[in-house]
Amino acid sequence: MVAWKNLDTLDSYQALQETKGSVKLTEVMAGESGAERVRKYAVPMAGGLSYHYAAKKVDDVILEKLAALAKEAQLCEKFEELYNGAVINLTENRHVLHHLCRGQLGKQVMADGVDKREFYKGEQDKIAAFANKVHAGEITNEKGEKFNTVVQIGIGGSDLGPRAIYLALENWAATHNTLKMEAKFISNVDPDDPVGVLRGVDVEHALFIVVSKSGTTLETLTNESFVKDALEKAGLDVSKHMLAVTSETSPMAKNSGYLAAFFMDDYIGGRYSTASAVGGAVLSLAFGPEVFASFLDGMAAEDKLSAGDDPMKNPAMLDALISVYERNVLGYPVTALLPYSQALSRFPAHLQQASMESNGKSVNRFGESMNYVTGEVIFGEPGTNGQHSFYQLLHQGTDIIPLQFIGFRKSQNEKDVEVKGSTSQTKLNANVAAQMVAFACGKTDENPAKCFAGDRPSSIIIGDQLTPEACGALLAHYENKFMYQGFLWNVNSFDQEGVQLGKVLANRVLDHNTDGALKEFAALFGI
Amino acid sequence: MVAWKNLDTLDSYQALQETKGSVKLTEVMAGESGAERVRKYAVPMAGGLSYHYAAKKVDDVILEKLAALAKEAQLCEKFEELYNGAVINLTENRHVLHHLCRGQLGKQVMADGVDKREFYKGEQDKIAAFANKVHAGEITNEKGEKFNTVVQIGIGGSDLGPRAIYLALENWAATHNTLKMEAKFISNVDPDDPVGVLRGVDVEHALFIVVSKSGTTLETLTNESFVKDALEKAGLDVSKHMLAVTSETSPMAKNSGYLAAFFMDDYIGGRYSTASAVGGAVLSLAFGPEVFASFLDGMAAEDKLSAGDDPMKNPAMLDALISVYERNVLGYPVTALLPYSQALSRFPAHLQQASMESNGKSVNRFGESMNYVTGEVIFGEPGTNGQHSFYQLLHQGTDIIPLQFIGFRKSQNEKDVEVKGSTSQTKLNANVAAQMVAFACGKTDENPAKCFAGDRPSSIIIGDQLTPEACGALLAHYENKFMYQGFLWNVNSFDQEGVQLGKVLANRVLDHNTDGALKEFAALFGI
Repeated sequence: MVAWKNLDTLDSYQALQETKGSVKLTEVMAGESGAERVRKYAVPMAGGLSYHYAAKKVDDVILEKLAALAKEAQLCEKFEELYNGAVINLTENRHVLHHLCRGQLGKQVMADGVDKREFYKGEQDKIAAFANKVHAGEITNEKGEKFNTVVQIGIGGSDLGPRAIYLALENWAATHNTLKMEAKFISNVDPDDPVGVLRGVDVEHALFIVVSKSGTTLETLTNESFVKDALEKAGLDVSKHMLAVTSETSPMAKNSGYLAAFFMDDYIGGRYSTASAVGGAVLSLAFGPEVFASFLDGMAAEDKLSAGDDPMKNPAMLDALISVYERNVLGYPVTALLPYSQALSRFPAHLQQASMESNGKSVNRFGESMNYVTGEVIFGEPGTNGQHSFYQLLHQGTDIIPLQFIGFRKSQNEKDVEVKGSTSQTKLNANVAAQMVAFACGKTDENPAKCFAGDRPSSIIIGDQLTPEACGALLAHYENKFMYQGFLWNVNSFDQEGVQLGKVLANRVLDHNTDGALKEFAALFGI
Repeated sequence: MVAWKNLDTLDSYQALQETKGSVKLTEVMAGESGAERVRKYAVPMAGGLSYHYAAKKVDDVILEKLAALAKEAQLCEKFEELYNGAVINLTENRHVLHHLCRGQLGKQVMADGVDKREFYKGEQDKIAAFANKVHAGEITNEKGEKFNTVVQIGIGGSDLGPRAIYLALENWAATHNTLKMEAKFISNVDPDDPVGVLRGVDVEHALFIVVSKSGTTLETLTNESFVKDALEKAGLDVSKHMLAVTSETSPMAKNSGYLAAFFMDDYIGGRYSTASAVGGAVLSLAFGPEVFASFLDGMAAEDKLSAGDDPMKNPAMLDALISVYERNVLGYPVTALLPYSQALSRFPAHLQQASMESNGKSVNRFGESMNYVTGEVIFGEPGTNGQHSFYQLLHQGTDIIPLQFIGFRKSQNEKDVEVKGSTSQTKLNANVAAQMVAFACGKTDENPAKCFAGDRPSSIIIGDQLTPEACGALLAHYENKFMYQGFLWNVNSFDQEGVQLGKVLANRVLDHNTDGALKEFAALFGI
């Protein structure tokens, strides 16, 4: 049995406190020492990726202490319990089974009387068969014409992950001739969202996927109404254009209003559902089931690495340990995620949810308050764009913001131009390499406005190319990292009680059952 | 003459320190006290907007001290110096004249031998005349066919602001039949950006605007090459499809390779250039010059309000004072910007640049280091989407993140559906009202995981509808807020020395002139 303990009760955590300030990047990253660190501080990942932490504020002494922390916190054993089906999500009394969507990491997991790996795999197979029929023109609109667009209607986890991965692979798929259908996304209850998206959609040739685990998400049901309205106004049979992704017990299951329904369940949190039918339906329709399968293979391979007990060979665990060190020992409250890949433009927004919703908690998994900070703020935009924007503060602001870069040797389309002796891809990568050194080493100047203090930590994940496998490995890495952070902080990373109060109060406004400030705020909107 | 002093040398700032912790939102926002605060703590803005700060940690005592701070820091006088043409940007020895793009706030400003208001207005008129000819089919492609798409090629300030405003008004323009041309944007040096954008563009009917003040921005020139390549491959005359927005002294000016050139100058920083030709060309082509003129009118009206000396009637000044209070007295390092409007999806990314690049500085305007923190981290996503994502941490995380909401009584398209007795727009607004109360008041519960500590401050800007005027007023508000924050912190908000080191090191990589860690990082990418 594992022991769930608060971070500050662990001896190895206390031992880490002494190391605060012992590594100055301006010193260790200079000269030959810096070169040696870059060669040495790297771990292979799946999908052709690798994780590099030379520019983090660690050295062999700290890494040894972090390894001791991993052991004392029983990180590996906790993950093992999770994937073997323990009820890790205590608050909601649920298993945490999203890893089973991409492979069988451990023992057979039975729940609700079924083998859950078989259940998730079965849904993938159903989706694949359906998508193949759509692509082959066997499932068509009322006129027998092929569908060319798929529109996902969902919010939060039913939107951010699938959208980020669609954007991540759209260019790749177009280049590799596997872009079967264009995908669009409707999420916000703001009516300008569905109206704006529908303006660009030929509804006659569009399939709409309504995604809600409970089948009761108000935003999603409202947007479904918008779409039904548009289909009806176009004289189309709504049930020929709508799919459902939901749980088997929801009101959306076995509803004749949908052309087909695909299922997930309560053991997969929204923010971890990209690998389930939530991402599977839209991504399989957009790219073909083989591409989605490759993406899952990348996830599964990274999951295996994440299950290893040596943090020096387990990038997700190591990344989590270093980030908790930065948060709780060095005292940095924010991390920037900076992919040098335009395809990953919405990847930071997805990881922002995955991290902040998982670990933004003030009580531990037993409901007790803790004496340390937990989940960090995550934000980010693609480079080099960010360099011309908020990097000013990252370089010369008064706060230190740890950075996580992502980069690829090759572009997705491999088409390029040479200007001033180098390709765009080379320029892109020259920039990310330069940034890591600039942040770590800084620069003195007799003009104080041109000084860079340096000593600003960063890591980078480098891949050969953002393929479906690499994309899957990248996502699994972060999912597992956030899980390990949660284990270290001793929080339940799989509930989200913090979203409830707003819902309750919003319903009071809609029911005109308000008083005090709530009544006045509502009145400002004429409600 | 104004006196530029460090924040911590001001008596009124020291007086504010005593008030720390004196306002508990869980108390003052409860019951009738909360209702009264909502009615009382509001200031009108231009464009039908108003700023509401009832849920900020202020009361009459603190507001009085903030007003004293505004006076002692000579905020109003400093803005007056700025718009009257003083060389506010000391590091670069430049005037700061972006306000002149939208109106003449003060005295005539002469620079480089010309009246700068006339210069900026003249460029707007040139752009308007050009855009009208394009829309009328008087300027066409080689076949005499109308252009239907405009593509902006720029990065940083030449991208984020114009893109955010295009997205903000695209739906509105479509609804009001003023959407003349679709706009797209290419920014990143990642070759997947131009390739991906060009895949969706019919280049034969597209105009491309190359935007670079210096005419030497490497990303932008590289992407220009991509586009020229595409035009040439399509057998088109490049010079019939390309426009330039640059300064009169740049290599791009008076270049016969462009169909037309429009000018700005060194007195307008990139992040403040949306009102100049940088935003003017693409937005006038997309929406028609009248819509862009309305947007500028909204900015001008808000600028006038921002110039007032009473912070209780000057929303930009008040917003800045409260945010500096949060940053330097209450100690909050991050602010979330949360528009309840899908149209404002990229507005937070633009303000992230405008704020973080302006005020992320460690030395004051005279190059001296300070004993207080400056620029904050800004991030945000539209609501209600964010509610299903990172709000968990905002509600129940261990750190307090101040919030800035934006909302509108009416949607842009005014098309809506009623589900469960309310429209989508009402649901959207019920949610934002509910969130403000949830964050301020919290909720106790016998289950600690369901407890909300509350006391989390927020403000909101509410408008009737996101029209061009409202959009302009909103942008000017934030630009002026960041300026006032910079005055309070005594930093130069108009330079960006922090972006230089990365450029220098990137060029060393491209020149293969590297050693140490830089050489090794470059080698990881095969450079």
